[in-house]
Formats: sequence, C-alpha cells, structure tokens
Amino acid sequence: LVGIVMGSDSDWPVMEAAAQALDEFEIPYEVDVVSAHRMPREMVAYGENAHGRGLKAIIAGAGGAAHLPGMLASVTPLPVIGVPVPLRYLDGMDSLLSIVQMPAGVPVATVSVAGARNAGLLAVRMLAAFDPELTERMTDFQAELNGQATEKGKKLRAKVAGSSSFGFGK
Amino acid sequence: LVGIVMGSDSDWPVMEAAAQALDEFEIPYEVDVVSAHRMPREMVAYGENAHGRGLKAIIAGAGGAAHLPGMLASVTPLPVIGVPVPLRYLDGMDSLLSIVQMPAGVPVATVSVAGARNAGLLAVRMLAAFDPELTERMTDFQAELNGQATEKGKKLRAKVAGSSSFGFGK
Amino acid sequence: LVGIVMGSDSDWPVMEAAAQALDEFEIPYEVDVVSAHRMPREMVAYGENAHGRGLKAIIAGAGGAAHLPGMLASVTPLPVIGVPVPLRYLDGMDSLLSIVQMPAGVPVATVSVAGARNAGLLAVRMLAAFDPELTERMTDFQAELNGQATEKGKKLRAKVAGSSSFGFGK
Amino acid sequence: LVGIVMGSDSDWPVMEAAAQALDEFEIPYEVDVVSAHRMPREMVAYGENAHGRGLKAIIAGAGGAAHLPGMLASVTPLPVIGVPVPLRYLDGMDSLLSIVQMPAGVPVATVSVAGARNAGLLAVRMLAAFDPELTERMTDFQAELNGQATEKGKKLRAKVAGSSSFGFGK
Amino acid sequence: LVGIVMGSDSDWPVMEAAAQALDEFEIPYEVDVVSAHRMPREMVAYGENAHGRGLKAIIAGAGGAAHLPGMLASVTPLPVIGVPVPLRYLDGMDSLLSIVQMPAGVPVATVSVAGARNAGLLAVRMLAAFDPELTERMTDFQAELNGQATEKGKKLRAKVAGSSSFGFGK
Amino acid sequence: LVGIVMGSDSDWPVMEAAAQALDEFEIPYEVDVVSAHRMPREMVAYGENAHGRGLKAIIAGAGGAAHLPGMLASVTPLPVIGVPVPLRYLDGMDSLLSIVQMPAGVPVATVSVAGARNAGLLAVRMLAAFDPELTERMTDFQAELNGQATEKGKKLRAKVAGSSSFGFGK
Amino acid sequence: LVGIVMGSDSDWPVMEAAAQALDEFEIPYEVDVVSAHRMPREMVAYGENAHGRGLKAIIAGAGGAAHLPGMLASVTPLPVIGVPVPLRYLDGMDSLLSIVQMPAGVPVATVSVAGARNAGLLAVRMLAAFDPELTERMTDFQAELNGQATEKGKKLRAKVAGSSSFGFGK
Amino acid sequence: LVGIVMGSDSDWPVMEAAAQALDEFEIPYEVDVVSAHRMPREMVAYGENAHGRGLKAIIAGAGGAAHLPGMLASVTPLPVIGVPVPLRYLDGMDSLLSIVQMPAGVPVATVSVAGARNAGLLAVRMLAAFDPELTERMTDFQAELNGQATEKGKKLRAKVAGSSSFGFGK
Repeated sequence: LVGIVMGSDSDWPVMEAAAQALDEFEIPYEVDVVSAHRMPREMVAYGENAHGRGLKAIIAGAGGAAHLPGMLASVTPLPVIGVPVPLRYLDGMDSLLSIVQMPAGVPVATVSVAGARNAGLLAVRMLAAFDPELTERMTDFQAELNGQATEKGKKLRAKVAGSSSFGFGK
Repeated sequence: LVGIVMGSDSDWPVMEAAAQALDEFEIPYEVDVVSAHRMPREMVAYGENAHGRGLKAIIAGAGGAAHLPGMLASVTPLPVIGVPVPLRYLDGMDSLLSIVQMPAGVPVATVSVAGARNAGLLAVRMLAAFDPELTERMTDFQAELNGQATEKGKKLRAKVAGSSSFGFGK
Repeated sequence: LVGIVMGSDSDWPVMEAAAQALDEFEIPYEVDVVSAHRMPREMVAYGENAHGRGLKAIIAGAGGAAHLPGMLASVTPLPVIGVPVPLRYLDGMDSLLSIVQMPAGVPVATVSVAGARNAGLLAVRMLAAFDPELTERMTDFQAELNGQATEKGKKLRAKVAGSSSFGFGK
Repeated sequence: LVGIVMGSDSDWPVMEAAAQALDEFEIPYEVDVVSAHRMPREMVAYGENAHGRGLKAIIAGAGGAAHLPGMLASVTPLPVIGVPVPLRYLDGMDSLLSIVQMPAGVPVATVSVAGARNAGLLAVRMLAAFDPELTERMTDFQAELNGQATEKGKKLRAKVAGSSSFGFGK
Repeated sequence: LVGIVMGSDSDWPVMEAAAQALDEFEIPYEVDVVSAHRMPREMVAYGENAHGRGLKAIIAGAGGAAHLPGMLASVTPLPVIGVPVPLRYLDGMDSLLSIVQMPAGVPVATVSVAGARNAGLLAVRMLAAFDPELTERMTDFQAELNGQATEKGKKLRAKVAGSSSFGFGK
Repeated sequence: LVGIVMGSDSDWPVMEAAAQALDEFEIPYEVDVVSAHRMPREMVAYGENAHGRGLKAIIAGAGGAAHLPGMLASVTPLPVIGVPVPLRYLDGMDSLLSIVQMPAGVPVATVSVAGARNAGLLAVRMLAAFDPELTERMTDFQAELNGQATEKGKKLRAKVAGSSSFGFGK
Repeated sequence: LVGIVMGSDSDWPVMEAAAQALDEFEIPYEVDVVSAHRMPREMVAYGENAHGRGLKAIIAGAGGAAHLPGMLASVTPLPVIGVPVPLRYLDGMDSLLSIVQMPAGVPVATVSVAGARNAGLLAVRMLAAFDPELTERMTDFQAELNGQATEKGKKLRAKVAGSSSFGFGK
Repeated sequence: LVGIVMGSDSDWPVMEAAAQALDEFEIPYEVDVVSAHRMPREMVAYGENAHGRGLKAIIAGAGGAAHLPGMLASVTPLPVIGVPVPLRYLDGMDSLLSIVQMPAGVPVATVSVAGARNAGLLAVRMLAAFDPELTERMTDFQAELNGQATEKGKKLRAKVAGSSSFGFGK
C-alpha cells in the first residue's frame, strides 16, 4: 500500500526505519531505488503508475539537492512524504530545504532530518484516517509510547534517588 | 473533514490559503484559533476530539517556537500537517525547525515556510487516496497547473521575441 | 524545590549537570521524564501541579522540536528554564530555536545548547534572590570560579615560560 | 525590584515592552543605559551594586556582539534575563548567540529575539514564586491570555463562516 | 545556442539579466517556462531534445526547492547553469542549496543568488572556449569592466577630495 | 585541456575526484597548486596564460575564504569551475559562499561542497558540447549511472524481500 | 597614512564611515576603487606599492564573494582591515565569511557587517600604539563615548520617570 | 609587546598558534588566562593596564558567548585581535558572531574560527608597520609561504604524473 523509494541504496540505513514502522502496523509496502537524477524517466514512470498500482502514499528519501520527493509529487496525485537524508556535510540542512520548500501547487509532507521512522508512522496515520482498526492500533501505539516514557521516568527517578544525596522527593 | 487551526488570528493571512485550497476541491473544513501556549488544555481537547468528530486531517499553523502542530499530533491519531508561519525575524527558520524536527513516534507533515496552500493540497491528496472522484479532481488540478505554466511560457516567449533583437527560435 | 524534567532518559547525560549544580548548593530537587509528545496529558498535569507541590522553578530539557519547556510554561505560573539538548544533526540549533522563540505571554528562560549546568545555577540564583544565605553561597561560588580561573592562568604562564624561549614577562 | 538596562537608548523601542509588562503587574522597576562597551566600569559597578540596592532580577537588552547580559551576570549573584535586540543585519541571530551561549558557571536567562515583553513576564514569574498574591495575578494573566485567544477564535470562525461557502461546522 | 528556462514567468525579472548578457555578445538564445513541478514531462522532453536542437548550454533559474536545473542536467549531456532565484523568505539560501548540492554524476554549474547575469556570461565563456572571436570579445568585455571600475575610482577620489578636509593624496 | 588547481596539496584528497572523472573520459589535464593567498602573482600568471596554453576550462578548489576560483575567473576568459573544499569547521558553508557569490561580470561555475567529481564531469560536458564523440560518451555515462542505480534497486528489493515478513510486492 | 579601498563605488555609502572616523582623528587617508575581480592587476599593484608609498594600514570593503581584503593581504606586509559589505541577499553573511575565514599565513582583521566606522577606529588604534598623542586622543574618544552613553541613560531615566506611574527609583 | 589572553586554559591548544607565530618573529609576548565571565574585575584591570605596561596589541581568544575580546577593547586604546574558539557545538559560529559584531566605537580585529596563528601574524603586521626590519621579515615570511606552496605544487605534479595515465603536461 505504501511505496518506499530512495535515490540510492546508500540511503537504506536511514530509510529502513520507515519500513520497520510499516512492518509494526502490518502494512504492506514495497522498497526500491528510484533516483531522480540517475533514473529520471523511471522515476517519472514510478510516480505516474503509483496510484494505478494501488499505492496510497509514497515515502521518498533523498539527500543534498534532494529532488526525488518533489518530482514524484509532481507526477502523482498521491500524498508524498519526504525524508531529508543527511549527507557528510551540512547536517541535512540542504536536504531539508530541498524537500520542504516546494512551490505552491505541489506539496511534499516533510519529516525531520533522517526521520524515516516518522515518515512510516505518518503513512500509517494517513491510512488510519480511513481504517478504524488501524486508528485503534495507532491509538494503542501512542499509549505504548506513553507507557515506555513513563517507565523511563520511573527508572530515572530510581537511579537518581540512589546516587544523589539530595532530592526533592525524599 | 479537515480542521484548520492556528496559534493566533494574526496567522490567518498566511493560513487562509489552506482554506482556499480546500474550497477549490469543495472539501468541508472548520477554522479555529487553538493556541498551544495560551490555550493548552483546549488545544489538547481539540486534538483528542478531532478524530471522533469526523476530521480526517488537521492543518496547524504556528510561528517561532511553533508547538501547535507537534502537540496536536501527540494527542490525535490523525495526520497533522504543519505550516511554519514566518515571524518578523529569522524568516520562518525557527518556525520550520520547531515543526519539522519532531522526535520519532510523533510525525508532523511539514510544508514550506508560509506554505499554507500546499498544506491544503496535501490534505486533499490524503483524502483523494481513498476517493476516486477526488483523485480525478487532483489529476485535473495538476493538468490545470500544467496548462497555466504552459501558457506563461507562451506569453514569455512572445514578450521576449518582441523586445529582443536576437533569439534562438527565430 | 526545583523540578528537573526531560523528554527522554536519553537526555539525562546532558541534564545531569543541572542536578549536580543544585546538589552543590544543597537545593532539593526532583528528576523525571515528562515527554511533551509521548506523555502530553501527564506533562500538562505535571505543570499544573508544580506550583502547588511547592516547586519554585522547573528546569526542562528537550531536543529537536523541543516543546517541553514551552508547554510547561503555558500551564504553570512558575519560571521555566529551558535546556536545548543537541541531537545528532543540526548541533542543537533546532532545539535552541524551538525553546527560545516563545510567543509574547509565555516566557522560557533559555540557556545555551547543552547548558544544563547553567540551568541549575540559574535556578539557584532565582532562589537566592529571596534567600540571603544562598546569595552568599552564590557569591562564594563566583569567587571560587575566579580562583580557579586565576589558578589556571598561573599554570599556563608557568608552562609557557618553561617551554618558550621568548616571553614578555622575562 | 527589577532593573531594566540596555546598551543604548536606541534599544528602548524594543525594551519598553519589558517595562510595560512589569507595569501591568505593578512591580517597581528602574530603567537605565549601561553599555558594556562604552561604560564598562559603570556596568561592572551597576552589576556589583544591584543586589545590595534591593533588585531581585536584572533585565538586560543588547544587540550584535551583545555582551551586557553576560557581563552583568558575571558580577552579580542575581538572575539576569537577556533580551537579544535585533540589529539591521542578521535578524538578531548574532545577538541571540552572543547572549545565550554563556560558559558554564555564569547563566543568562535568554528570551526570544526582541522578546522584551517575555523578559518582563519572566521576572514577574521569578518574583511570583515567592509571592502568593503575585502568583495569583500571574495565573489570572494566563487565564486572560486564554480568554483573548478564545475570543480571537470566535471572531475568526464567524468571519470565515460568513465569507466562505463551505465549512465543516455548518 | 543557449536555452534560458525558468520555473515560472515570475522568475523573469531575475532571469532577464541572463538574456541581456547573451544579447551583449550577440549569442542567439531562446526563453521559456519549463516548470519541473508543473510540467515534469515537458521538462524532461525539453532536456532530452536540447542537444539535438543545437543548444550548447542551458541556463535554468528556479527558487525554493529548485529542482529545474538538476532535473534538466539529468536528461541532457549539455552543461546546465543554475540560477538560485530568491523567494520571499530565506533569501535564496534554500534555492542555492537545492541547486548546488547535486549528487556525484550530475553536475549543475551554479551561480550566485539572483546571479542571472553571471549565468549568461558563464554560457558565453563556455562558447568562447571554442570560438576565438568570442574569446576576444570576452577579453574586451573584461577590459571594459576594468575601465568602468577605474573610472568609478577616479570619480570617488574626486568626490572625496572635494568634500573632505583631509586626505593622503594631498 | 583542463587545468585542475587548488590552494594547497591538502586539498588533493578532495580534488582528486575531478582528475579521476577526466581520466574516465580520457581528457588530458594538468594538476597544480596555485594558492591565491600564498602565490598571488603566480596565480594571476596562471590565469592569464591558461587560454593561450590551450586550456578550455579551469577547475579550482579552495576552502574557507576561498578566493582562488574567483580570482582566476577575473584574469581569464575561460570558464572557471569552483569546488568548495570543506575545512574543519563550518562544513564548507564558508567555502561555498566565498566561491558562488561572485559579483556580476565575473562568473564561477560552482559545484557542491567537496563536489570535485562533478567539477570534472561539468568540464567534460563543456567540452562535449563541441565534440560529438564526447557527447556520446557522456550519454553512455548517464546510461551507465542509470544501470548502476537500477541494479542497486534490484539488490535492495531482493534484500528487503528476504529479510522482511511483509512487502507490497509479495 | 591609511588606504581605504572598495570593490565598487556602490560600497561608498557603507565605507564612508571609515573615512569619517579617520577624519575625526585627523589622520590622512586616501580613498579608491580597487576591484579584486574587475581590476585584478591594479589591485595587486595597489597592494604591492602600499607599504612603499607610506601607508601604515589598508581598509578594504567588499561584498558577496568578497576577495579584496584577502587578496590585498597576500601582496602587502601591512595590516589589512576587512569590512563585510552586505548585499541585497544573505545579510552580509557571505561577505563576512569570505573575508574572515582566511587561511593560516595571511590574516585579515575583520570587523562587523557594514562596520566601516570600526574599521577606521581600528586603524586609529594601530597607529596610536606607536603615537602617544594619538593614544591620548583615543582615550579621550572612549571617555566621550562613555559620556554620551551616560547622557543617554539620564535622558531615558527622565523620560521613563515622566511617563510611567511606577518605577523603582521613586 | 603582545598580550595573549584567553577565557580558559582549555583554549590554549587553539591559542598556542598565536604564541608560536610571535616566536617565529622573535616578538616578546605574555600569556595569561583572563576570563571575562569568571574574572571580570581582573579582566578590566588587565585591559586598563595593558597600554601602560608597554603592550602594543592584545590577542584574545574566547568561545561561545565570547565576550573577552570586546570587553578588553572597551577598556584599552590598544588594538585588540579576537580569535573565535570553536566549542563542541555550532562550529564556532557563535564565537565568531559574538566577537566580530561589535557596536560602532569599539572595534575588535577578528580572525577566522580557530585562526590563532593569523592572530599572531596580524599582531606582527601591526608592529611591522612601524619597524622596517620587521617589515622585511614579514616580506621574507610571505616569500617563504610562496616557496612552500610552489614546492607543494611541484610534488603534487610529480605524484599525479606518476600515478595517472593521462595528463596535459605530458
């Protein structure tokens, strides 16, 4: 239901987290390398066919002059989620601006630098808006996040209480 | 179907373009001021009730330490679209980073600085993924964008041909 | 008297310095994980109850789209001190802007990127303004800083005098 | 109770908002020009005497290589609040970094670029932590902010309802 | 011999200077709107046909997430010159990074923000490298720049000598 | 046919990729250290003689206050390609701005931070515009890039299909 | 005794303040346009002759890829003071980095964006270090700055005392 | 003749290069820790006495909210050279802006991030302007830089000629 594409397989270590998020929600997806600059015609074809092939959203990761998400958005009516992949220099600021600053008419839903996990979760939310069961799973997921954070707080309080000679709670 | 909220009514001149985009696609929406910092409890309530009230997506605009989109995303399973509203200083870079750099677990679909029109169009795409008629309208819209750009090219070529003594096309 | 909270226990290595500063001044404090995005309701509750529970200031650390300090400030009348925790990318610039650029009405006292020690010392100064003994300790602390820096100068002068064949002091 | 100082009277249009905030809470304050670079000795003297003269906090505004807040913090045990005043170029980013990036040991409570109103409100919160009546006024103030924002929402909804042919609430 | 294209006719006020530079060297050119995002297929076709139609270089201007220069470079073997067009926010920094940070394999010759005149002159230099007469004209042009600057110096010296009571040359 | 120069031999690890790209296309080149700041007169002489010695383009790499590309461009009618070499601090942003922001009249064709390979390929494109055989090689090169990217996609799909329990393609 | 040069007469409105500062100290100076990019050979000659002609320091202003100060520093043993002239975009950040980030071996004494007055005053200080009378004048000048700032404080206090109903000094 | 001071002995690894440069020119200097924030009164005293003690210039290094160079400049008529010391985050951009963006009236001669060697060489140039023998040594030094760079070029050409199968010089 979701296409995960990237400009190079070197983006996979970042983009893998999007796939993992979809896995957690048992949402089928496909993964591919579709480089805007090295495979421009295939990239256009990928975007043009995505809707017809049954995809509901595309997650596209790219770095530097990151043109993949925006170009896909220009040839598909589907929502496209862009993941700014950080390169060796500039900490992903170039990737972020190249993806998020799209002109009026062609939106890209941009997530944080290297934020592929959130790209996956955003796709889940898009699907969940039309799938009550998935909405419930997302709500459960949020509760679980809450539980994990609460647990972390408990551990931190214990650790600090044990090591420090002061503390308000005492 | 879509909630458009912002931190202050001073954001309306920017955010209005989101409403206009939804109007063009005849998608019902509501508009409200829900300040993360001045109405924190109402903001949480808005987010918590959004899905139950039938919203399919929330568009949230905010400037500076722009917390509204991210906070709403933390209390709703719906997709939240964030619009970085530029303030008087820093050209919206603070708004952009405050919205897009969300931690893993809670995504915000961020658009460009002041890119409220694209926020509206992104919401349309999310809905269109589950609505064939809307998909067709989005495809028509993209064709129209194409037509307008083509027309602009025609006018520009004519204008340049008229004013310049050289030109490759001659 | 002071609450030290953070978005995740992964912030503790940075935030620990705030606790240590309070320890040095024997000021009681509590430590907890209160994630704005994963525990929004508990976060609001924490802020709402902070004053009633006797806290005089809250120190909140967060990274990226760092919403915790600002959101706490919106639900408590207490002074909130924000610590921008740097993430892997962008060197904490996103954290800094997300914390410091608060809208008029809801201030956050922001310290430097990863400046948790100064957050602790700022809390001490706030308390000291109403506690003559604590003021004296802060003044002593500043004298000690002076002494340490003076000592460093002495050592540096000795080291340079020993290793260099020139030198103005000779 | 609060000293408001700035590097030049040209900073007054920005800094005035701090005074106004203190006025709203009926907190006595003084205003002065104390330039770190043009009056270094007077600046040191101001800082040294501030506590003895009964001040509880200092608000210092400065632009560019903004040294005033940090230098005052180094000669007083009082909490110092720094306001980055934006100059003609760089949008206050230089002022912000010069104020907020203080070394460990000497904190400055930094607010947003040109955020003098929040500097005033932060001083109020510091005082309120030790003054129940002032806490109540701060709580009332926050309720009033809430009321104003709610009112703005009402007006915006009315305005949009009147001008738009669609709308979810209808 | 040179194609000048841009994402929208709103870029023409910036891009016109490229045409003017080519006019000065009597180099034939064509001008068109070829939007990467609104005319993706026509854009690809434009790039694919450019070499066969006899173009020797393409000058492409675009703003924000500026994908046009890079996408053209991916479908033509011709040198592509990119002009970062500044938008209302971010001063063209987004346009610059989106154009210059191309991945290895597909270069774009980037000029300064709004530097369309230099884009034109760069195209002239590329042609001149294979055209001795054009080289001579470029050398003359550089001599003329020199003459103009020298003349400006003369005027400035005269103006300062007249208005100032001091001056080293006296 | 192409001169590759740099401010110091410490730039060679970055600049080597330009030479390698020219090697791949069997284009003769020369390599030298021509420091704008340490060899200003030789640098001017290098630029002045470049065209007469038969060079068709100059590739110049420099870091920090990177003056070499721009200064060479001021003394030659040849196209100059600038490579921003990143230094230890600032990630090459200083190098990039120092090279790309040339004043009107004297263009430098700037590539990405550390993008020496693209500098080489850009020189190839400039030559290819006047050399049909080289054009063909560039077209082949682009086809090869396409093939490599396609191959990477195949491998990635296989890898993901093997390791993941879900997948749209299944 | 001091040379004030700039890349174009359009820099004069900024650079004039350097001349004015020297006028105030009755230090002879000369003013000229010496463009690094449009007059490279004259620029080198200017730098080479500066010391022999009796100059003690050179003040050079330039914008964008601002090469003038650094190039002059490479051909003269004199201290060179660089003034980053802000252009229409990027607020002088490009000018600043192009001037200040000089490689080891060739220093440029950089002042603030558009800080030509300080460039003049820095030259005065360099001369004053070897001229007791000038030192005295600089000391007087600093006392005068102090006096002006003190006066501004007096006026501000009066103004605030008159307009405000509160005030600590009362 | 030159004072080298820094905010902490942790700045010594950066600042040592200034001392080394002075050593190479056999210029006497002194080294000390004079922290603006931890030793404000001693810092003022250091600046006030510097001229009387025979110093001709002060080199001051500091990081983050780097106030030392500017504060010294405010209490001495001597030229002050500021070295932005990079801290763990922000790559020295905060240090650079805090030092270079001084207000009109009080200049600091700023060098590059971590550019202590150039700070030393700048001091040499200031002294050399009034010392013919030192001028000659600076001229020799520049010739030596030239020789070293020329030698590097020779080695690079040899290395490339040996390893590469192509090369223009062959």
